[in-house]
Amino acid sequence: MATETEFVHPYIPRNLNLPDYVPVALSQSAIVSVYGIASVLVVSFMWILSGRFHKMSKVDRLLMCWWIFTGLTHIVLEGYFVFSPEFYKKKTPFYLAEVWKEYSKGDSRYAGRDSGVVAVEGITAVLEGPACLLAVYAIATKKSYRYILQVAISLGQLYGTLVYFITSILDGDNFAASDFYYYAYYVFANGWWVLIPGIIIIHCWKKICAAILLDQKKAKTG
Amino acid sequence: MATETEFVHPYIPRNLNLPDYVPVALSQSAIVSVYGIASVLVVSFMWILSGRFHKMSKVDRLLMCWWIFTGLTHIVLEGYFVFSPEFYKKKTPFYLAEVWKEYSKGDSRYAGRDSGVVAVEGITAVLEGPACLLAVYAIATKKSYRYILQVAISLGQLYGTLVYFITSILDGDNFAASDFYYYAYYVFANGWWVLIPGIIIIHCWKKICAAILLDQKKAKTG
Repeated sequence: MATETEFVHPYIPRNLNLPDYVPVALSQSAIVSVYGIASVLVVSFMWILSGRFHKMSKVDRLLMCWWIFTGLTHIVLEGYFVFSPEFYKKKTPFYLAEVWKEYSKGDSRYAGRDSGVVAVEGITAVLEGPACLLAVYAIATKKSYRYILQVAISLGQLYGTLVYFITSILDGDNFAASDFYYYAYYVFANGWWVLIPGIIIIHCWKKICAAILLDQKKAKTG
Repeated sequence: MATETEFVHPYIPRNLNLPDYVPVALSQSAIVSVYGIASVLVVSFMWILSGRFHKMSKVDRLLMCWWIFTGLTHIVLEGYFVFSPEFYKKKTPFYLAEVWKEYSKGDSRYAGRDSGVVAVEGITAVLEGPACLLAVYAIATKKSYRYILQVAISLGQLYGTLVYFITSILDGDNFAASDFYYYAYYVFANGWWVLIPGIIIIHCWKKICAAILLDQKKAKTG
């Protein structure tokens, strides 16, 4: 006699096998709000802190806000996913598990532990996350490697997102529970990690080229 | 009554389904020799050509040789793979199909069209390949973007190789027909695309940091 209830998961494809799945307990608005409020707090803290630095431009302060936000997202949220293959079995509501149970409605490859998704998230959480925090420090202290570091991380984010989207298309692009989740979670949420790294790459690329050009001119004249 | 012979493929896992598979026709030494000789010709051509340029350092000449070699490998070899999902069915020996029939002995995910492998190879062939040729041009004409471009491509190659190895481990690391193919094709051949991009990143990273530092000093004193 079965003493435990077997829950039916809400993910697509329907035949995705998730034994001992436990449904998400928090509401969508609660999950999104916690992430939103935590992010606003972190960004505000960084904006105020960076304002106390001597001669810090508004652009650099904005960049520091982005790097602390994306770095903590990589380390905390994505780091939890990478090292918690059984998050969908969590019985007591644990916020980080709730996030991925909810996000899997937009892309069930997270619950399904697709190797492409885990590989990209692993690189993002373990290598790029700490590198983002290093970028905050590098900008604050005007290290000479601050531009190339920002290009390196942003390219990694773009490459990861590209692999993430291409593998989905190659595997049939059928991992969202509905059009709403497809556009809200899969397209919109990830879109930021294409747009912002793209802008940062252009910004830092120009700075680097200008410095190299100056260097060349100096070598010629001097 | 079946009029055609069904061939048994040599790949691991044994249950990999490859309908209409046709065995590799060229010998391993023939396949490797053609790639080796073609590469030596391309590299020699670039070494001689770059020697005719004014004030070209030996390091830059070596870099141009690497970029033309790896760029053509990405575009021709990997480009063929990306756009030829049925290469393993080729009946008449066609060199590029033979390469991938042979390489699949080291990693059957190529014949099996694993989405992670196709995504990485797609980015490599379509974006990085042409970018490598641009790097040859950028070094030859001393463009100010030559260092950051080389870092960008090398990081892409490293990221791709990392995804390639991690997805294999996550999926059980059982795609080689024997230990020989595992080490010769999968580990040794790919190892070069970790080692050389790594060295190039360090080289260009230093150049960029030095230029930024000089730029900062000039801004302070001037």
